[in-house]
Amino acid sequence: MTEAVTQARRGFGAEHPIGVAVLGMGNVGTEVVRILREHSDDLRSRVGAPVVLRGVAVRRLDVDRGIPAELLTTDAEALVARDDVDLVVEVMGGIDPARKLILSALTGGKSVVTANKALLADYTGELAAAAEGSRADLYFEAAVAGAIPVVRPLIQSMSGDRVNRVVGIVNGTTNFILSAMDETGADYSATLAEATRLGYAEADPTADVEGYDAAAKAAILASLAFHTRVTAADVYREGISKITSEDLETADAVGCTVKLLAICERMPGNERLSLDGSPIDVPDGTARPTGKDRVSVRVYPALIPRRHPLSSVNGAFNAVVVEAENAGRLMFYGQGAGGAPTASAVMGDLVMAARNKFYGGRAPGESVYAELPIAPIGDIPTRYHVNLQVADRTGVLQAVSGKFAEHGVSISTVRQEGYDEGARLVVVTHHAPESALADTVAALAELDSVTSVTSVLRLEGTEE
Amino acid sequence: MTEAVTQARRGFGAEHPIGVAVLGMGNVGTEVVRILREHSDDLRSRVGAPVVLRGVAVRRLDVDRGIPAELLTTDAEALVARDDVDLVVEVMGGIDPARKLILSALTGGKSVVTANKALLADYTGELAAAAEGSRADLYFEAAVAGAIPVVRPLIQSMSGDRVNRVVGIVNGTTNFILSAMDETGADYSATLAEATRLGYAEADPTADVEGYDAAAKAAILASLAFHTRVTAADVYREGISKITSEDLETADAVGCTVKLLAICERMPGNERLSLDGSPIDVPDGTARPTGKDRVSVRVYPALIPRRHPLSSVNGAFNAVVVEAENAGRLMFYGQGAGGAPTASAVMGDLVMAARNKFYGGRAPGESVYAELPIAPIGDIPTRYHVNLQVADRTGVLQAVSGKFAEHGVSISTVRQEGYDEGARLVVVTHHAPESALADTVAALAELDSVTSVTSVLRLEGTEE
Repeated sequence: MTEAVTQARRGFGAEHPIGVAVLGMGNVGTEVVRILREHSDDLRSRVGAPVVLRGVAVRRLDVDRGIPAELLTTDAEALVARDDVDLVVEVMGGIDPARKLILSALTGGKSVVTANKALLADYTGELAAAAEGSRADLYFEAAVAGAIPVVRPLIQSMSGDRVNRVVGIVNGTTNFILSAMDETGADYSATLAEATRLGYAEADPTADVEGYDAAAKAAILASLAFHTRVTAADVYREGISKITSEDLETADAVGCTVKLLAICERMPGNERLSLDGSPIDVPDGTARPTGKDRVSVRVYPALIPRRHPLSSVNGAFNAVVVEAENAGRLMFYGQGAGGAPTASAVMGDLVMAARNKFYGGRAPGESVYAELPIAPIGDIPTRYHVNLQVADRTGVLQAVSGKFAEHGVSISTVRQEGYDEGARLVVVTHHAPESALADTVAALAELDSVTSVTSVLRLEGTEE
Repeated sequence: MTEAVTQARRGFGAEHPIGVAVLGMGNVGTEVVRILREHSDDLRSRVGAPVVLRGVAVRRLDVDRGIPAELLTTDAEALVARDDVDLVVEVMGGIDPARKLILSALTGGKSVVTANKALLADYTGELAAAAEGSRADLYFEAAVAGAIPVVRPLIQSMSGDRVNRVVGIVNGTTNFILSAMDETGADYSATLAEATRLGYAEADPTADVEGYDAAAKAAILASLAFHTRVTAADVYREGISKITSEDLETADAVGCTVKLLAICERMPGNERLSLDGSPIDVPDGTARPTGKDRVSVRVYPALIPRRHPLSSVNGAFNAVVVEAENAGRLMFYGQGAGGAPTASAVMGDLVMAARNKFYGGRAPGESVYAELPIAPIGDIPTRYHVNLQVADRTGVLQAVSGKFAEHGVSISTVRQEGYDEGARLVVVTHHAPESALADTVAALAELDSVTSVTSVLRLEGTEE
C-alpha cells in the first residue's frame, strides 16, 4: 500500500490539518495550548501536516485565559465529537468525566493523549480495548514522571528484554518534603506547611503524602515492565505522614536518607515444573509456591544509602531505575511534575499520534499476556531498620536479639545509644519477609525491657 | 481498514512467522542470537507472531558458535535476499559491506535494525531514503550509548519540544581510562595498557581514544535533537591521548574531573529579521551572523565540576543529558557498551519492527527539515583552564593577565603554585570564543616570563 493510498484512505494529506481538542486548562493544559500555538511551524514540519487547535474544554468561561474566546467551551463531550477533531488531549485529571470522554474519543477512532495516572491505573484495560477496537492510539507518557521518558522506553526500548525491577521516586511533593526534612531537620508538619506555601503541595495533600499518586504510577510502571495487568488496588501502599525528624536523623547516622519509593519487582517462581506442570520441590527448602513468576508492587518510605543514585534525587525531581536481564541497570532522571515539563511529554505523544494519523502508523497496544499473580506484601523479603527505646540495663540486647532470632529474622547490625532516661537501640536486619518482621515487632513490644518500638522503616538499595 | 485486512495484505498473521537475518556474530550478534533462541515465547507474545531466526552471516564457518551449522552462512547478500527474511539485524560494523547489505534489505522492503554508528553518522540520509521508498523501518537505538534509550526518546518523546543541548559521555573506553587516571593518578599510556589488558580497549584503540567513535555518536544525536543533518565531518573532534596525570591533578585542585564529552548545542540565531529577511543589528554588539539558529557539535576532553551529574559517571558507563525548552534537563544513564546491553537495545528495535510488520505500523522516518548551518569551532564560546609554567618573578601575573585582556578573554580565577624551578599559574577564564583563546595562548607562549603553556583544557558544565 503506498503512502498516498494510506493518506487518501485516512483522509489526511499535507494540506489536511490534524485537529486537536484539549480537555482541561490547568497547569499542563495551559502549557500544551501555548506550545500548540507558539510552535505550529515546527509541529507541522515534524508531523507532515498542520496541527490545529480546535478547542479547549474548561469548567468556567468567565476567566481570561489569554486565548480567543471562541476556542473555549464547557461542553467537552461536543468538542470531542466534532468532525474536525482527530486527536484528544486529556489533561483534566480525575476518573469522571475523563473516562467517559476518552472512551467516546477512542470509540470514534480519535487518538488520545492523556496524563491521567489515576484513570490509567484502574482502567487501562478498558481504554486499551476501545483503542484497539477502532485502531486509534492511546498514549500516556505524561502519566508517570512528568517530562522523563519512561513509559515509552518501557513499552518500546525494553520490549526485547526481561525487566526484573523498576524502582522510582515518582512523586515530587513527597520528595520535596523528605529532601527538606533531611536538609533542615524540621519535622513533617512544618515541612508540609512550607511545601504548601511554596506550591509544592496541594491544599489537600492526601493523594501525594499518603502515596496514592505514587501507587497509581507504580501500577502503570509494573504493568508495562512485566507485561501483566496491575491496578492501584494491587499496590501495597504506605505514605510519609508518619516520618519524623528522628527517622531522618537515625537514617543519617547509618549513612542513609529516606525516600518514598515505588518498587515494582519480579519475584522469580520455581520454573522447574514436572511434566504434568506441578511444581517440583526444591531441596534447599526455599521452594517457591508456583511455577510462575509473581510480581510485587509497593510504595513506601524507605532508607536508602547515600551512595545509591536515587539518594541524590532531591526536591521536586523524579528518577526511575530500571533493571533488566540484558540492559543491566538504567536510570532516567528529570523534572517529574510542573506544567511545562509534563506538557513536553504530552506534546511528544501528540506528535507521534498525529504522525500515525498522517502516515498510517500505530502506537503499540496493551501487552498483558504474562498474567502474573501479585505477591502479597507478607511474602516480600526486605531489610528493616528498627528503632527501639529500651531500658538501659544488662540483658536488654540479649532479650531483643532473642526475639529477632525466634522469628527467623537475622540481624545485620545493632547500634546502642545511651540517654538519661534509658537507651536507644537501632537494629538493622538482613532480608526478612514482612510477616516475620511484623511478628518480631509485636513480640518486641511485649518485652518488659522495651519501652517502645519508635519506628520500623524498610531499608532498600543495598546489595546484600 | 481492519487489522485482518492489513495482515492479509502484508502476508503476516498469527501463524505466519517473521523471519530474521542477523549479520555478524561478534559480541552483540552472539547475544542477539542467544536472546532470539532463549526468549522465543516472550517475543512471540510481544510481537503477535513467531519471530524466527533464519540465518546468521559470519566471516568464517570453521568456528563452533554453539548454534546449528545450517544457520550459518558466509553469503550475507543471499541471506538478506531470502524470501523468508523480513527483518535484518546488522551488527557487523564498518561501512562496507554493511552499507550495501542494509540498502539491499531496505530496497527489498525489509526492515533493518542496526547498531552501526560509523555508517549512520555518514549515510543516514541515504539509508532513510531507501527505507522511505519501500515503507520499511530503519531502527538504530543501539548505535548510541548501548542499552540506554536515547535515540528513541530524542526521536519520539522530545518530538513536541525544542532541544537546546545534548551533552553525553558516550564512549566507554575513554571513560574507563579517564576514570582510572582520576582514581589512581597513573599516566595515560599505563592506563591505556591496563584498559587493553582488561578488554576495555581494542588492540588498535584509535577510534575510541581519538574521539572518532564519540564523534559519530555526536553526529547522530545532533541530527535527531535538532532535526537537521549532521555528519561525522561536521563534528569538531579532539581525543584524550594528550591528557596527562598533571591535567587530572590540576583539575582536581579546582574541584573538577576530566571527561570526554560529546556536546551538541543549538546556537540561537538573531531571529529579529527585517521585513526583507536581512538580519537587524543588535545594539549590544553581540549581533549574530544569520537569522537562523546554528548548531555546534564537538567532542573533546573537558573539565567538569565534581558536583555535575556527569562527573560521577565512571568506568564503562555512559550518560546523556538532554536540555529542552519545556522538559528542562533530563539525564539517561546506563551501560553504554558490551554484548548483552547493546543486544537489549537491538532487541527492543527488533520487536518494534516486527510488530510494525504484523500490525502495519511504521517507524518515524528521518526528520531533517530544519537544515541548520554548522557553527565553526572558532565561534564557540567556552570556558578554559590554562596551565602555565612561569618564571617566579615580579610582574609575571601582570604580563600574563595582560595578554588575556588584550585578546578580550576575561579571567575568572588565577591560582599560583610555587615550585623550586619557577611557578605554575592556573588560569580559569570566563566564556570566550575558541579563536580568541587560541590567539591568547599563542601570545602567552611568546612571553619571556612564560616557560611553557603546559595544557589548555576546556571547562564545561558550569552555570556561568
